Amino acid sequence: MRKVGIVGIGHTVFGNLSEFDLVDIMSFASADALDDAGIRKERKIVDQVFVANVGAGMLNHQTAIASSLVSRIDLEPAMAETVENGPASGASALKCGYTAIAAGLADVVMVTGGEVMRAVTGWKATDFVATLLHPEAEYNYGLTLPAFAAMFTRLYMERYGLTEEELAMVAVKDHDNGIKNPYAHVPYTCTLEGIYGSSDAQVVNNLIADPLRLYNMCPVSDGAASLILCALDSAKMKHFKKKPPVVIRGIGAATDTHCIHHREDPLELKAVRLSAERAYKMAGLGPKDISFAELHDAFVILELAISEEVGFFKKGKSRDAVVQGLTRIGGKLPINTSGGLKAKGHPLGATGVSQVFELVKQLRGEAEEGRQVGNPIHGMAVNFGGFGNNVVTTICSKE
Amino acid sequence: MRKVGIVGIGHTVFGNLSEFDLVDIMSFASADALDDAGIRKERKIVDQVFVANVGAGMLNHQTAIASSLVSRIDLEPAMAETVENGPASGASALKCGYTAIAAGLADVVMVTGGEVMRAVTGWKATDFVATLLHPEAEYNYGLTLPAFAAMFTRLYMERYGLTEEELAMVAVKDHDNGIKNPYAHVPYTCTLEGIYGSSDAQVVNNLIADPLRLYNMCPVSDGAASLILCALDSAKMKHFKKKPPVVIRGIGAATDTHCIHHREDPLELKAVRLSAERAYKMAGLGPKDISFAELHDAFVILELAISEEVGFFKKGKSRDAVVQGLTRIGGKLPINTSGGLKAKGHPLGATGVSQVFELVKQLRGEAEEGRQVGNPIHGMAVNFGGFGNNVVTTICSKE
Repeated sequence: MRKVGIVGIGHTVFGNLSEFDLVDIMSFASADALDDAGIRKERKIVDQVFVANVGAGMLNHQTAIASSLVSRIDLEPAMAETVENGPASGASALKCGYTAIAAGLADVVMVTGGEVMRAVTGWKATDFVATLLHPEAEYNYGLTLPAFAAMFTRLYMERYGLTEEELAMVAVKDHDNGIKNPYAHVPYTCTLEGIYGSSDAQVVNNLIADPLRLYNMCPVSDGAASLILCALDSAKMKHFKKKPPVVIRGIGAATDTHCIHHREDPLELKAVRLSAERAYKMAGLGPKDISFAELHDAFVILELAISEEVGFFKKGKSRDAVVQGLTRIGGKLPINTSGGLKAKGHPLGATGVSQVFELVKQLRGEAEEGRQVGNPIHGMAVNFGGFGNNVVTTICSKE
Repeated sequence: MRKVGIVGIGHTVFGNLSEFDLVDIMSFASADALDDAGIRKERKIVDQVFVANVGAGMLNHQTAIASSLVSRIDLEPAMAETVENGPASGASALKCGYTAIAAGLADVVMVTGGEVMRAVTGWKATDFVATLLHPEAEYNYGLTLPAFAAMFTRLYMERYGLTEEELAMVAVKDHDNGIKNPYAHVPYTCTLEGIYGSSDAQVVNNLIADPLRLYNMCPVSDGAASLILCALDSAKMKHFKKKPPVVIRGIGAATDTHCIHHREDPLELKAVRLSAERAYKMAGLGPKDISFAELHDAFVILELAISEEVGFFKKGKSRDAVVQGLTRIGGKLPINTSGGLKAKGHPLGATGVSQVFELVKQLRGEAEEGRQVGNPIHGMAVNFGGFGNNVVTTICSKE
């Protein structure tokens, strides 16, 4: 199979970007990626664009945004499609981009993910995300993603003895990283004392869905991120001399039952495990080879659970790693060096692309001061769709 | 590149299916395709599912339908993504399915397109489709697809002298074909006299957007269609002994400016021409090799214009072919043997898949009585997104 390199990256700040429309912010990240790749002028060498987005129709009353983006940044007649896979749309679009190159249908592909979610707020944002669930067996009963995450967290706490304070330590670590990331939506530190120590904190750290509090979940964000891929054997690689390519070494995807009540053990995230196994297999690597990882912590419990399913830690033991600081920058296996979804934000379609953007930053040694992992070789990103229905794992490496 | 065969096909009736939800009808077509392929029991050999859909979020308040479909028909842990490219979503999903196999990431792929559009009716259906347009430069000025098609038709009439009666002859032909198609939404014949000849007809054939009348455009339909693909070199081909595979010989896609006013000549459909050129090139074929074609006649003028852009007829001359009956079944180059979007219907996400379903029916010699083309070798489908913004052409052949 052809080797595919990431040769350009772009990102908007995540947060409230409501003064822009969806295609605006996708064009900002895309233009950034073209600049980073050094091909703004020769941009017509892009053969194919994949856009990752979930809510354009519902939230922004717009469809066919792949064509719109292509036209906005003057890439016609490049082929263009939008890929949707809930919160894992970004990694799915990257998978399609990788595939188009591997198949020889394209040499240069742009993958841009974006979402303008804050077009709706409060319960409407929660309702939007709940459209991922089964419309009759789950949605109609008022189930939401925070509700599922709360039940999952409670079960995990009961089975493994995880405490609320240990859970909050994941958020503390993520914010410590996020404050150093110029793109983060919530760029400030928090402390365990701040979260739990005062009566003020109890107000800020509101209970959302018992046992989940505000600091156990990600914000509702707008934002976009973009990647440029090129076949390493393509003559077009001559355009990408600016920076060494980061190689996509493994991509694995898998689905699990749409309804969580159909799973034998609701704490088992089979699609995470299988997607990682598939990515490891393609890469010829195992969990011990991974230098750092971006794991989909839409709820902080997921950082723990995913880190176990992909084989970094034994079941129930990831909290020890957090307590010991192993997953902090400077630790043995830094996780969510970007701040994660928790501190960086989670514009659905952008997230999977943004995770790989972070892998590239780290592998290039370009992360901001205090965020750079020491000499990373292989980075892994897990992009988690639905409540584990559809998961995509990507492994990127230095060439 | 690996050769890819279509080994199973499924289709629901197109029409008003409002008693079912979107994933219901997609599961019907998918189950049909699994049965046709003879793998209902061994269905877990499907590695990847691509769903084509545009309006699930807006119209059906549901997202992540690829995961939902996979789970509904018990295909976990197959990989799954939804592909959206406006009215060309179906062919785009097929393109992604073809690519996944060509790249070696999958051996067996299911491509299912579906739409429940009649969840909205009247102006809301027109408004839904108008979300394909530019949100500021077009949509905000009240422009709709019928409005664009009307301007396009008027310009074509002025430039080439096409008459309203000649245009209506396309609809008459399409309905003659559609009445023999058990899946057609509007399965009855119409005559020029019926359309124009009486005062009753003038009422039925209402003016929608001058010069377009009701019989110049497709209905708003619900429906789904499904295809199963397999690499011809895969060991899994042993499961598909029931029927000889139809080969996907060429796929080409291209974009044009999102806004029509940015085109030098609004009658030129560059993306149609380029997508066809790319498909011909991959297939090693030219227009003269094509035995029959499904062309995206959401507005009947498009059947004429597309048939010229892909090289079947000279500019302005396709109407002569219609008048002479060359594009009827039994003619030299039958077009829209299924009834086309005009008579069969146009559930956005399903259409591109349904077009290729028809290619397979014809190439297998399985079309219903009176619809079968004599000994076809190569069939072509053109799936037209936006108003020519994003077009995908597929060429299928007997093995």
